Amino acid sequence: MNHAFNIQPLSRELEPALQQRINTRTKPLGSLGKLEAIALQVGLIQHSITPQLSAPRMAVFAGDHGAAKAGVGAYPQEVTAQMVMNFLAGGAAINVLARQAGLDLAVVDCGVASEVPGSSRPGVEYVIARLGAGTANYLEQAAMSVTQRDAAIGQGAALVRSWHAAGCNAIGFGEMGIGNTSTASLLTHFITGADLDAVIGRGAGLDDAGLARKRGLLAQAVTRVLGQKLSALDALAEFGGFEVATMVGAFLAAAECRMLIMVDGFIVTSALLVAHAINPAVLDYCVFAHGSAEPGHVAQLNHLGAEPLLQLGMRLGEGTGAACAFPLIRAALACVNEMAGFEDAGVSEAKSGD
Amino acid sequence: MNHAFNIQPLSRELEPALQQRINTRTKPLGSLGKLEAIALQVGLIQHSITPQLSAPRMAVFAGDHGAAKAGVGAYPQEVTAQMVMNFLAGGAAINVLARQAGLDLAVVDCGVASEVPGSSRPGVEYVIARLGAGTANYLEQAAMSVTQRDAAIGQGAALVRSWHAAGCNAIGFGEMGIGNTSTASLLTHFITGADLDAVIGRGAGLDDAGLARKRGLLAQAVTRVLGQKLSALDALAEFGGFEVATMVGAFLAAAECRMLIMVDGFIVTSALLVAHAINPAVLDYCVFAHGSAEPGHVAQLNHLGAEPLLQLGMRLGEGTGAACAFPLIRAALACVNEMAGFEDAGVSEAKSGD
Repeated sequence: MNHAFNIQPLSRELEPALQQRINTRTKPLGSLGKLEAIALQVGLIQHSITPQLSAPRMAVFAGDHGAAKAGVGAYPQEVTAQMVMNFLAGGAAINVLARQAGLDLAVVDCGVASEVPGSSRPGVEYVIARLGAGTANYLEQAAMSVTQRDAAIGQGAALVRSWHAAGCNAIGFGEMGIGNTSTASLLTHFITGADLDAVIGRGAGLDDAGLARKRGLLAQAVTRVLGQKLSALDALAEFGGFEVATMVGAFLAAAECRMLIMVDGFIVTSALLVAHAINPAVLDYCVFAHGSAEPGHVAQLNHLGAEPLLQLGMRLGEGTGAACAFPLIRAALACVNEMAGFEDAGVSEAKSGD
Repeated sequence: MNHAFNIQPLSRELEPALQQRINTRTKPLGSLGKLEAIALQVGLIQHSITPQLSAPRMAVFAGDHGAAKAGVGAYPQEVTAQMVMNFLAGGAAINVLARQAGLDLAVVDCGVASEVPGSSRPGVEYVIARLGAGTANYLEQAAMSVTQRDAAIGQGAALVRSWHAAGCNAIGFGEMGIGNTSTASLLTHFITGADLDAVIGRGAGLDDAGLARKRGLLAQAVTRVLGQKLSALDALAEFGGFEVATMVGAFLAAAECRMLIMVDGFIVTSALLVAHAINPAVLDYCVFAHGSAEPGHVAQLNHLGAEPLLQLGMRLGEGTGAACAFPLIRAALACVNEMAGFEDAGVSEAKSGD
């Protein structure tokens, strides 16, 4: 498969006009802080001094992990399917937070262990894009084949292109998969070069004994590829999840389509690490929503040179951090579009030299 | 005047039931981070395990400062009146952000130098509660008389009680007043004991020369009361603004009415310092929205033992930080009220000891 995506690095051509628009709103220069940076970025993404969100969407990519059965996490594997059912019924945190933020929700089964019966309903689209009944156990073999990996990337890209074609210009990324903080730790280790132990955390709530077992299992997992030099794509096949691989394609296609991308926490960012390794220009389209409580998130953010908008101590996944940050995007764009200018409002500007 | 307000410290009686409700939603324990703390606090404030916002309101208290003419700030004094006009016309940042957050807006003229012609319109209530045409210049005399101070506190309290009587159970505080970061610095110095220089900042955008002049003027201002031991109420009369004094009464009445209070940045928190000195239980009703770029805000927050939800580098005032934080309150309450429980959703809980 060809992993080349045609992503345009952001042109700064419109920056002076956008900055002028922002600076002449009735407020002290720069006083809206990060909201101004967001407005500028989205304006550049959209080539517009009046940037707008159109049909913004939250996509939750779900998949199971063979290694989960070995006990890397606090929850049994069947919780992935149960939570997909919960998403379809509207009862999960991401349902509530997406509704609050005015986001359509898509739930994408990228390979849950057992297929979940259900269908789309208003506000919740159910997409079946399965690569298998969960990945293989990476303690014993590669989590997925190169064919599966590339198919997942292709499916993620196709999905995002279809949403874009339907009018969506902003997408939040979320995920569900019991065991996927372990996958994220492994990908972060291989791609950023961070010490493996430093990027392993408690996931959805391991106690000390559980954390020690997780550390032991992941240390064992990496011995399987000892001495190999893994590219990001290699690491994705060795230790990835179907939901992670699908997100890689979704990220790259979203940037290709010039969509605003809202990046959630640790697991979503592990997929972004792979996408970034394939095409670093994807970052120009990303806003980082929330600093995860998982210790590996900091290593990821440092690797990408990114800083999250929110620090709310959340560690739930599903895209909940991304959903919480969306109102700030709306607020930033509304300020640029709806605030009066100094001249129109008859407000004096700052005294020069003062 | 009697400054006694009947503020009930929060009873923890409902905490076990609320915590149980939060813990049984379909998410890992504690994984919604600060959203869970907010839901708990609002539940305790409202004595309810299904807390709700009702007619939430943003109040912007405006007033002028005699000392502004001496050149403590970057903008000329007439900007206060111009911005009040902008609020009434709907073109300021707080108009946009309040609309985004679904907040009614009240603009309260507590003593702008010249009265602004205008009237209420849908979504923007204009309240005239003037204590004078701006305060006196505290470089020469007390900013206001004790009578004015107490009248302002009474008016702020009466206003909030009237909003509460009309069904409002949550209020955000904002302010406008050229020169009022200087007042906030002085109040912070006298009430927290922080070094004056350490709590003086660039306000709406002073350059180095302007900041040096501001430091010199405020150092001069405090010499007028040298050797006096000022209470918080004394400091309020000596250096306060009419908008700050009005907010003191508004804070105390809001807590008395068991309303959720969203605290904005540096100037609003300077009023809260006075309210807290009068009755510390007011804090139980407060959520701190945003960490201001003004250096004195940290001294205030440390004094109150508070931590803000957001750090967006904003320094605009008007209540803009408070407005940006309101969607997180809505999100927190929606999660408690709308998420499914583990049992109802058929989702397995964490394995014990794992």
